[in-house]
Amino acid sequence: MTFSKDFLDLSRCSKEEIHELLDLAAAYRDGQQPTALKRDVTVANLFFENSTRTVTSFQMAEHRLGLSRFNINPQTSSMKKGESMGDTLKTLQAIGLDLAVIRHSQTAWYKQLEKDPKLAISLINAGDGAGLHPSQTLLDLLTIRTEFGHFEGLKIVIAGDIAHSRVAKSDARLFKELGMQVYFAGPEEWWEDDLAEFGEFLPLDDCLAKVDVVICLRVQLERLNDQSVASFAPADYFHQYGLTEERAAKMKPGAIIMHPAPVNRGVEIASDLVDGPRSRIFTQMHNGVFARMALLTKVLQFRGLMEEK
Amino acid sequence: MTFSKDFLDLSRCSKEEIHELLDLAAAYRDGQQPTALKRDVTVANLFFENSTRTVTSFQMAEHRLGLSRFNINPQTSSMKKGESMGDTLKTLQAIGLDLAVIRHSQTAWYKQLEKDPKLAISLINAGDGAGLHPSQTLLDLLTIRTEFGHFEGLKIVIAGDIAHSRVAKSDARLFKELGMQVYFAGPEEWWEDDLAEFGEFLPLDDCLAKVDVVICLRVQLERLNDQSVASFAPADYFHQYGLTEERAAKMKPGAIIMHPAPVNRGVEIASDLVDGPRSRIFTQMHNGVFARMALLTKVLQFRGLMEEK
Amino acid sequence: MTFSKDFLDLSRCSKEEIHELLDLAAAYRDGQQPTALKRDVTVANLFFENSTRTVTSFQMAEHRLGLSRFNINPQTSSMKKGESMGDTLKTLQAIGLDLAVIRHSQTAWYKQLEKDPKLAISLINAGDGAGLHPSQTLLDLLTIRTEFGHFEGLKIVIAGDIAHSRVAKSDARLFKELGMQVYFAGPEEWWEDDLAEFGEFLPLDDCLAKVDVVICLRVQLERLNDQSVASFAPADYFHQYGLTEERAAKMKPGAIIMHPAPVNRGVEIASDLVDGPRSRIFTQMHNGVFARMALLTKVLQFRGLMEEK
Repeated sequence: MTFSKDFLDLSRCSKEEIHELLDLAAAYRDGQQPTALKRDVTVANLFFENSTRTVTSFQMAEHRLGLSRFNINPQTSSMKKGESMGDTLKTLQAIGLDLAVIRHSQTAWYKQLEKDPKLAISLINAGDGAGLHPSQTLLDLLTIRTEFGHFEGLKIVIAGDIAHSRVAKSDARLFKELGMQVYFAGPEEWWEDDLAEFGEFLPLDDCLAKVDVVICLRVQLERLNDQSVASFAPADYFHQYGLTEERAAKMKPGAIIMHPAPVNRGVEIASDLVDGPRSRIFTQMHNGVFARMALLTKVLQFRGLMEEK
Repeated sequence: MTFSKDFLDLSRCSKEEIHELLDLAAAYRDGQQPTALKRDVTVANLFFENSTRTVTSFQMAEHRLGLSRFNINPQTSSMKKGESMGDTLKTLQAIGLDLAVIRHSQTAWYKQLEKDPKLAISLINAGDGAGLHPSQTLLDLLTIRTEFGHFEGLKIVIAGDIAHSRVAKSDARLFKELGMQVYFAGPEEWWEDDLAEFGEFLPLDDCLAKVDVVICLRVQLERLNDQSVASFAPADYFHQYGLTEERAAKMKPGAIIMHPAPVNRGVEIASDLVDGPRSRIFTQMHNGVFARMALLTKVLQFRGLMEEK
Repeated sequence: MTFSKDFLDLSRCSKEEIHELLDLAAAYRDGQQPTALKRDVTVANLFFENSTRTVTSFQMAEHRLGLSRFNINPQTSSMKKGESMGDTLKTLQAIGLDLAVIRHSQTAWYKQLEKDPKLAISLINAGDGAGLHPSQTLLDLLTIRTEFGHFEGLKIVIAGDIAHSRVAKSDARLFKELGMQVYFAGPEEWWEDDLAEFGEFLPLDDCLAKVDVVICLRVQLERLNDQSVASFAPADYFHQYGLTEERAAKMKPGAIIMHPAPVNRGVEIASDLVDGPRSRIFTQMHNGVFARMALLTKVLQFRGLMEEK
C-alpha cells in the first residue's frame, strides 16, 4: 500500500513507510516547517471517550499544520439522538469538513465506513475500543528510534493489562515486524493467547535484566475490583506486577521506561521512576505532537490539500 | 421591514428580502468571497439543546466569514447557577462579544430580549423550543429554489410529527406566502388545527403522486411511547406513516425528498431513500452553511461591521 | 517581588506593581494595542468549576493578545481517570502549551505546583476553592480606581456571604493595603473572625450612608437552605441583608454598587439597582477583559514571549 485518504491502522504501512513517517516526525521535531496548505483545510475532532493527551496532542498538531479546528462535543451531539456514526460523518462532510479525528469505544468503528464511496472525508483513528491506537504506536516508535537509532535486535517488554490494552495490540505486531524481540508480562488473568505469535509471556522479573525498553501499561483501577476476572488491592498489584524501584534497579544501563499514560503512580510504576532518568514518559507526549503532524501530513498530501515541498 | 441587528424570524422578511438572502447564499455557494470585516468581529455560540448539524454549520459559516468564534458550553455556564438569559447576554456583551447564536428549548426565548435597548449584541435564532428555526427554513428554501428555479405553483407535503416540529411551523407559513401549495400528513394525534390556514391535512398516500417535494420530519423516538398522546412501535409508524419505498415509487419524476435530520432510518423514511437519487438531505446540509453565511452577512452589514461591497 | 512566570496571588504584588497592572489595563481599555508576540504562544483553559464570565473573559483577553487558545474540557479529561493536576500540567507542557489558566475547587491548588522546577508552563489562577480570585480583584480595583481616581481614604463595604466568598478574601486584604477603609456586613452566621484584621463587621444599615462603594456578594441559593448554618427564605434574606431600594437610597452621591456576578436579582440586590445609575456591575465585566490582558502581558513579558515595547 501507499498512504491513503484515511489513517486507521499503522500495520498496513510497509517498513519503509513507517520509517518515512518517523523521518518526517523527527524533522518536525527538529524545527522543519510544514509545507503550505493549498486552501483552507478544516478538521473535526470527535472524541467519544475521555482524553486529555490524545485530543490535545492532535489539536496541537493540527494547529501547527495550520488547519482550522472544529471541536465536536459528542455529549451534546445528535449521536445522542441516535444518529449513526456514518450519518454524522456524512453530515460533517456536507458541511465542508475535510478530516475527522475520531476516538470511539467500538473496536474497528471504521470497518464499514472506510469502504463507503460516499465518504470523502478523511478518517483518522485516535483509538478504537479494544482495537488499535496507531498514533500512539507511531509516537512509541519515534521515542524508541530516537533513543537507540534503530529497531533491529532491541528487546522490549510490555507489562500489565495486556488483554484490554489497545496499546499492547497496536504495538506488539509492529515491534516484531520491525525486528524487535517482544515479551509480555503481568497477571495471567489479563494475558491473551492470541498475542503469543508476537512474543513470549513471562514474569517481569525474568526479562527485566535483558530488555532495552519496558512499556508499563495503565491499569484501569475499576478493573482491579472486577471479581469475575482478578481482584487485587492496588498495593498488591504494585508489589506483584508493578515496576518497583527494586525491579527497575535490575534494568541494564541505557534501558528506558515508557508508559502511554495517564499513569497510576504507585500502582503500575513507582512514582519516582516516572520522573527519573530512565523515564521517557513525558518525552513520549512531546513526540506525540510530531508523530501526529507527520501522519496528518501524509493524509493531507494524499488528498492534494498540502504542498509536497 | 429591512434587515436588523437580530435574525430571529424569517417570516418578518418580505419576499424580496428572502430572495435577496437566497441570491447571496447561492453566490457564496458558487464561490463568491465574503466582503471584508471592518474590524475583528466576535461571535458566541450558545446551544442549550443538543445539536451537531446546526452548531457545526453555524461555526463553519462564521469561520468562512472570518469571525472569531467563542463556544460557550451551557452545561458549565453560570446559567447552571440560575443566571437569566438576559443577564448572560449582557455579560457576553460587556466582555465584547458582537453576536450570539442561540438555540434554546424555550419557545420565543427572544421575545423580551429583542426589545431591550441595553442589548446591542446581535441575537441569532438557531431554534427556539417548539417555535421557529429560521436558518433551517432558509436552507430548505435554498434547496427547493435551486432544484426548481422558483416557488410559485410547487406542491409540497410536510409529513410526520407536525405538532412538535419547529421546522413545520417555521416552513409552512413561508412556503404558502411564497406561492407553494402546502399539504400536511402524519398521525392525526400529532396534527395541530392552527396550521390549517397554511395547508390541508390529509393521508400521505393521497398527495404523494402530485407533490414536487416531500419533507419528512424527524420522529422523536421517546414520543412514540408517550401513551398520553399516541403510541406506535417504530415499525408500525413506518408502515402507516413513513416514506417507504413503495410510497416513494408513486412520486412523480423530478420530485425530491427532504428531511431536517437527524434521520431515523426505517422509521420516518426507508434507509435506501436517504441515500437515493431523490434525496436532497445531504444537499440541505451543504446549503445550510451558505444560507447561514447569508443571514450573518445581512446582520453584520446592518451593524456596519462588514463592507457592503 | 517582581512579576514571575505564574500569576496566582495578587497580594504578592507591591502597590507599585498593582498600579502598573492597572495602568496597563486602563491603556488597553483606551485602545492601546498589545506588543507583538515573539512566536506562536499557546494557552490552555482548564475550568473545573462552572463559569461563563471568567472563562469567556479570559478567552477574549487571550484572543486580543493574539494567543492560540486550547480549551480543555475537564469533564472529558484524563483527570476523570484519576490523573493528578501535576501530571496533567506536565502533559500539557510536553505537548507544547505555554500557559494554563485554571479554576479549581481546591483552595490553593497551586501551592506545590508553583515550586515544581519541572513545571515551566505558566500557571494563572482563575479561582481556587474558597481561596483567591486575583483577576477578579484586579478588575474590582480597576473599576474603583477608574471611578474615583485613587484608593486612599475610600470607604467600602463588602456585604453578604463573607465566609464562603473568595472575592471577599481576595479583595479585603488588598483594599486595606491600598488605603481603603473596609467594612463587612451580612448574616452573623456567615462572618469569619479571621477577616477582622481587614475591617469591621457591622450591620449594612450602619455603614451605607458613609461608604463610596458597596460590593454585594453572591448568595449561593443552596446555602440558604443549609440548616446547619443558617436558614433564610430568599425574600427574608433580601429584606434583612439585601441591598433593597430603600437601603440604596441612603447611599451618598457618587457612591457605586458592585457585584462579582452572577447576580440573584431580588435576593442580594434589588433587580432595578442592577441596571440602575449606581451600578457598575456590567462595567466590572467590561473591565475584566482588560485586567486579564494586563496580567497575561506581565507573565508573557516575564517569560520573554512578548515584546516589551
